Amino acid sequence: MTKSTYTISQLREAYLSKQFSAKQYLQQKLAAVKSDSNNCWISTISEQQLADYLEGLAQQDIADLPLYGVPFAIKDNIDLDQLQTTAGCKEYSYQPSDSAFVVKQLIAAGAVPLGKTNLDQFATGLVGTRSPWGAVKNSFDPSMISGGSSSGSAVSVALGQVCFSLGTDTAGSGRVPAALNNILGLKATKGLLSCSGVVPACKSLDCVTLFAHTSDDLNVLLDVAGQYDEEDCYARPNQASNQAQHYQPLQELTSLKIGVPKVSDLAFFDNPETEKLFKQSLKQLERLGAELVELDFEPFLAAAKLLYEGPWVAERYAAIQDFFEKDPSQCLPVIQTIIGGATKHKAVDAFKAFYQLQAYKVVCDQLVNQVDAIVTPTAGSTYSIAQLQEDPIQLNSNMGYYTNFMNLLDYSAVAVPAGFYQSQQGNTHSFGITLFSDAYCDRKILSMAALIQQDNGFSLGASKQALPALQTPASIEDDYMELAVCG
Amino acid sequence: MTKSTYTISQLREAYLSKQFSAKQYLQQKLAAVKSDSNNCWISTISEQQLADYLEGLAQQDIADLPLYGVPFAIKDNIDLDQLQTTAGCKEYSYQPSDSAFVVKQLIAAGAVPLGKTNLDQFATGLVGTRSPWGAVKNSFDPSMISGGSSSGSAVSVALGQVCFSLGTDTAGSGRVPAALNNILGLKATKGLLSCSGVVPACKSLDCVTLFAHTSDDLNVLLDVAGQYDEEDCYARPNQASNQAQHYQPLQELTSLKIGVPKVSDLAFFDNPETEKLFKQSLKQLERLGAELVELDFEPFLAAAKLLYEGPWVAERYAAIQDFFEKDPSQCLPVIQTIIGGATKHKAVDAFKAFYQLQAYKVVCDQLVNQVDAIVTPTAGSTYSIAQLQEDPIQLNSNMGYYTNFMNLLDYSAVAVPAGFYQSQQGNTHSFGITLFSDAYCDRKILSMAALIQQDNGFSLGASKQALPALQTPASIEDDYMELAVCG
Repeated sequence: MTKSTYTISQLREAYLSKQFSAKQYLQQKLAAVKSDSNNCWISTISEQQLADYLEGLAQQDIADLPLYGVPFAIKDNIDLDQLQTTAGCKEYSYQPSDSAFVVKQLIAAGAVPLGKTNLDQFATGLVGTRSPWGAVKNSFDPSMISGGSSSGSAVSVALGQVCFSLGTDTAGSGRVPAALNNILGLKATKGLLSCSGVVPACKSLDCVTLFAHTSDDLNVLLDVAGQYDEEDCYARPNQASNQAQHYQPLQELTSLKIGVPKVSDLAFFDNPETEKLFKQSLKQLERLGAELVELDFEPFLAAAKLLYEGPWVAERYAAIQDFFEKDPSQCLPVIQTIIGGATKHKAVDAFKAFYQLQAYKVVCDQLVNQVDAIVTPTAGSTYSIAQLQEDPIQLNSNMGYYTNFMNLLDYSAVAVPAGFYQSQQGNTHSFGITLFSDAYCDRKILSMAALIQQDNGFSLGASKQALPALQTPASIEDDYMELAVCG
Repeated sequence: MTKSTYTISQLREAYLSKQFSAKQYLQQKLAAVKSDSNNCWISTISEQQLADYLEGLAQQDIADLPLYGVPFAIKDNIDLDQLQTTAGCKEYSYQPSDSAFVVKQLIAAGAVPLGKTNLDQFATGLVGTRSPWGAVKNSFDPSMISGGSSSGSAVSVALGQVCFSLGTDTAGSGRVPAALNNILGLKATKGLLSCSGVVPACKSLDCVTLFAHTSDDLNVLLDVAGQYDEEDCYARPNQASNQAQHYQPLQELTSLKIGVPKVSDLAFFDNPETEKLFKQSLKQLERLGAELVELDFEPFLAAAKLLYEGPWVAERYAAIQDFFEKDPSQCLPVIQTIIGGATKHKAVDAFKAFYQLQAYKVVCDQLVNQVDAIVTPTAGSTYSIAQLQEDPIQLNSNMGYYTNFMNLLDYSAVAVPAGFYQSQQGNTHSFGITLFSDAYCDRKILSMAALIQQDNGFSLGASKQALPALQTPASIEDDYMELAVCG
């Protein structure tokens, strides 16, 4: 009776046309979640807790709630008051007294959280293998990594267990797993989504992120979740040029300049398939009317290196200092190695790294401002879970090649599906690209993503469900004008 | 024939009306500088170098140069290609290959640098006693401190040796010596005046600052010196609401709210005279029409404490690391103690301090945005050079009570003369207030400072020369509107 996968707007239509009730759908989804075999979930709500949500919804009108009865997943470093927060570490777990600010916004709009999802421990990783709850299996090929650290959140969307999910993104965690599971991941401008009630990774860089099937859905979610939170000292109010009405799916890219890293700065880690797919994406952008502009990508890559090689790892230490100092061995060995290395950094070195970053930022901003957006692969390649476990540091590092600089440089980014290839074993692997631009350009890059997704017409996540038509009426008038003012 | 002290506009008038020539005036001033007895100068240009400047000016039209033939002083941590830069430490000295960006702007506008001024070593101090070139003597009472670290720059203006000068300000160095010498000091928004060619103190916080006799002069100087410098990665372009035309000296403060620290947050360090003068200033502001709003000043004071007690001292270490590590004893003992303490700070502690600062900033910004400006004493008291030398750390710290938070919180500030009192020995001491507001409010606070200064009508610096009338025509229309948009 129900399809395997719904976008938010499709589910809403189904409820409104009484194809099935929220109760029917959510009970079915909670059952699916509880029998998940991809290691997506760390904990799920009880049937009684679901009943309480349903009772709440029964007293409300769907017309008033943009996310009425929409199931979602919460990465388990974000608080939900009904469940423990583990951050991927049993010994660290705590019972939150309240839900995270962002979670409260979504629930108030009618969304129903089905549980907490698996992640790379303390959100430290881009692979999805670094968890005592087991490696999260890719939604297309269970032998492959899911990407991380928001692994369970991405895979649960790709599998249609939920319509959307919350992740976090410090180094790429809200984008890499989107690419590997054929869904979209929005790492909005730092500070737009509150981090109150989130276990910090690098508190000065962390973003809460959104996974969904379409840019339409991301636009709605950004609107609901992106309320300014006075209690989060890193929160920033949105700018007028980046409000929901500036989401205007494009019908062509004519008159837009899209930056592309020069060939020698691209890395596909010996994967000819991803290289081919990226070239196809560039051709697609040209076919849609964009002018491609080759850019020196070195300054972005240099900034990226600072994140793990520089002092920012000390933020990860600061985030769990009391816990870590009591008994570092309660962390997974790889996490212990990474976070434990933080104490060697002195404040002097930290400031010197800030100066370096600031110098890179000036150069990168000039490049970013030359174009309407920059396109890169989201991840240059991917690996099997077995490969990852053999070489956990270097392969993880490869996954962040195109993502690590984004928060350091304060940009907005969206990961968009960009094709598939067959592995030698005949399994399907998905590939994705990222569009990024200056801070407060979220609606601009979402408007481009909408066109790219429609042009691709891929089915949703790991399902065979067809991509629906855009909900928001496209506007060709003033596209360029609207786009030019952001940032 | 010439007066002891000229504002920039008065000097310009004198040149235009041919009362005397630039050559006559500048030769006289260079001679005065060379026979200075206040320890203001570390080095001065030669007669030949002055002749070269004069030759350059002779080929230009005064109408084209807003600072034609105006002598100025340069704090000796700012490069002038003709003289060594010492930063107050002989062993550190170097011969710069070029002048600082800001210096070049001023010279291009016709200003003539007479030399480099004495400072607290490596700009680390607020007192003016921490220099191998001797303690800079206060322009009113040579037994008293001048304030620092831009000591010579402030005193040389107060004594009429130059019409204006360049200082730097990390913790208050561009404001405290203004207060103690009855001149104005503008610490403009961070990044408006380039720091290229400046020896850093705390590179992420440093500002180049301007000392002058009137707000009119500061407005002109900010315009000339405040050009955006692409080579300084901490430079920021000015905002439209803070351009020169927004300098509109007020005729009253009606409809303006001015914040005042609540009485228990004020500190005068047992000086009843400064306390009395500050109360008079508040009455003056009310008489001029302002509504005074008592504010909780604790969050500002808490942020201020972070500067010396927190990790930012590591920036001072980073600034001279190679030099310092080779032989710390080449620094003055007090500087060695302060800067040497930096290595104990870890990166983890630095990030934790940033989080604290960010939390304070949210609270402070809310307070700042409730009012048009906040007024404080610039320094709560002052000391004799002898007192300072007995207790160099604590008394220095007292001098920064109202200034240390300003750059950490990213505000604009102007120090304005606010009265005099007689010491027990019968000597005159000057007192000053500071007006501060959000970043990019420089013209707004200068517009207020202009009225306060006119209302006071004090003579210029340490001279008996009367304050001239305002040059810029006052505009009462739209004052409030203009003022409300900044920040």
